[in-house]
Amino acid sequence: MTFRTSRRLNFGDCDPSGIAYFPSYLHLLVGVLEEFFEELGAGWPGMIAERRIGVPTVRLDLTFQRPGSHGNTLDFEIRVVRIGTTSLDFKHAVSCDRQELWTAIHRVVATSLDTHKACPWPDDIRAALTTHLERTNAHDPAA
Amino acid sequence: MTFRTSRRLNFGDCDPSGIAYFPSYLHLLVGVLEEFFEELGAGWPGMIAERRIGVPTVRLDLTFQRPGSHGNTLDFEIRVVRIGTTSLDFKHAVSCDRQELWTAIHRVVATSLDTHKACPWPDDIRAALTTHLERTNAHDPAA
Amino acid sequence: MTFRTSRRLNFGDCDPSGIAYFPSYLHLLVGVLEEFFEELGAGWPGMIAERRIGVPTVRLDLTFQRPGSHGNTLDFEIRVVRIGTTSLDFKHAVSCDRQELWTAIHRVVATSLDTHKACPWPDDIRAALTTHLERTNAHDPAA
Amino acid sequence: MTFRTSRRLNFGDCDPSGIAYFPSYLHLLVGVLEEFFEELGAGWPGMIAERRIGVPTVRLDLTFQRPGSHGNTLDFEIRVVRIGTTSLDFKHAVSCDRQELWTAIHRVVATSLDTHKACPWPDDIRAALTTHLERTNAHDPAA
Repeated sequence: MTFRTSRRLNFGDCDPSGIAYFPSYLHLLVGVLEEFFEELGAGWPGMIAERRIGVPTVRLDLTFQRPGSHGNTLDFEIRVVRIGTTSLDFKHAVSCDRQELWTAIHRVVATSLDTHKACPWPDDIRAALTTHLERTNAHDPAA
Repeated sequence: MTFRTSRRLNFGDCDPSGIAYFPSYLHLLVGVLEEFFEELGAGWPGMIAERRIGVPTVRLDLTFQRPGSHGNTLDFEIRVVRIGTTSLDFKHAVSCDRQELWTAIHRVVATSLDTHKACPWPDDIRAALTTHLERTNAHDPAA
Repeated sequence: MTFRTSRRLNFGDCDPSGIAYFPSYLHLLVGVLEEFFEELGAGWPGMIAERRIGVPTVRLDLTFQRPGSHGNTLDFEIRVVRIGTTSLDFKHAVSCDRQELWTAIHRVVATSLDTHKACPWPDDIRAALTTHLERTNAHDPAA
Repeated sequence: MTFRTSRRLNFGDCDPSGIAYFPSYLHLLVGVLEEFFEELGAGWPGMIAERRIGVPTVRLDLTFQRPGSHGNTLDFEIRVVRIGTTSLDFKHAVSCDRQELWTAIHRVVATSLDTHKACPWPDDIRAALTTHLERTNAHDPAA
């Protein structure tokens, strides 16, 4: 149930040392998350304009193993590891030519754009997220 | 011979007024230009690392007609209108749902990354660019 | 009456060819414009939240003469050259060590964030802008 | 020995939900780190061009407590918590009006830009960093 998509690492995403500028990686990551929510049927333009829900990041633990270079194809893997009442935990892995470049543990929280307070995931989004939830034990009927 | 490609206008490309942040449009445009050169067989990673040629922008005249909104599909059209010894002139048009959002007149110059001086387009790149040159007069066999 | 301010060209504003990435210049320019409006007493946070007015760019003609390099101090000069009913025309010049790097002719339009239509400049902002208006002829008492 | 500096959260650093776009925070953070190294006498332009040393990020653990808003003054605090042979560990705290917005644990590694391998900190940079090293126990003469 891993979500996979790719992005090219462009000239404008790299720095004078010739490798990826890490804030640009995170701009790409947010775009990939948007694509994931779009596929769930929970596109952010509608979530923001109609439901007034945003998904701000509250935790992000990044580990960069290898530098990415201009022209690389970045393969993103997004896994949902836990769905809380208002939170959502991901594990991300980004690789190029099957070599892992960087990984992240990521928590976002459904948040009212009007009150800036956490709010429960709407049922339809929760149901869609659940289809992506990683099963850690295929023998566990509760998983 | 117009080059066409599309990009989604993401959350992170928009500003607090809810529409496209224009510097983000230009970051997208540079990525589109890279894709155009890649299709020509003149990908920038090789041009930079092996030939030591860059294509800095020297003129860019932008006209923004309509605001782009989060979630829009931006359709880019890139036309080559003139190939000089060292320069290259484009006309760009960016639309969404067949409505033009913004246009640009754009000049880049082939430039040595070592001397920072203009240099003639290599013959193979010039030949590839020529196949994209817009013919303004279909009756002119020299065009 | 020229408005002057400076910005450092940082590592993250430069590209793999070691010089300024031009979309980063424009991100810096928008920040400089914000500082100019702040000095006028028309800070954008209040304009957006309370008056619901934005100042989108409708024209921007850029000329890049010399590349900027990592670590450069960029000296911005912002001149108001014309105040229309809803529009505002600037000339910008950006230099480093008294050498001009790039210039721009720039038009923004006061725009309702609710209707996305042009709206007249509020009187107080118009008055503040007028104190910055460039006088093209010092002998002209009407200037 | 905490290094302190401030940045304004600009229009172009915020997103359609009206708050800081977190990749923009990290672009600001990299600029703050550059300012810190500049103050140490180890400015990045010289480190990159002359010594061929970069300081890529290998770990970054981010916690976002409160959203930042357009117009906020962000007060950055950078503390050096450990200097390894090739690594350097920071704790960052970013606040506005004395309220903490976000914090980070951050590791960079001195890296040869030619081999992309870790290299020991040059003695002068190590000495300068040491003057900033946080003393965890004021009674410990070795600290």
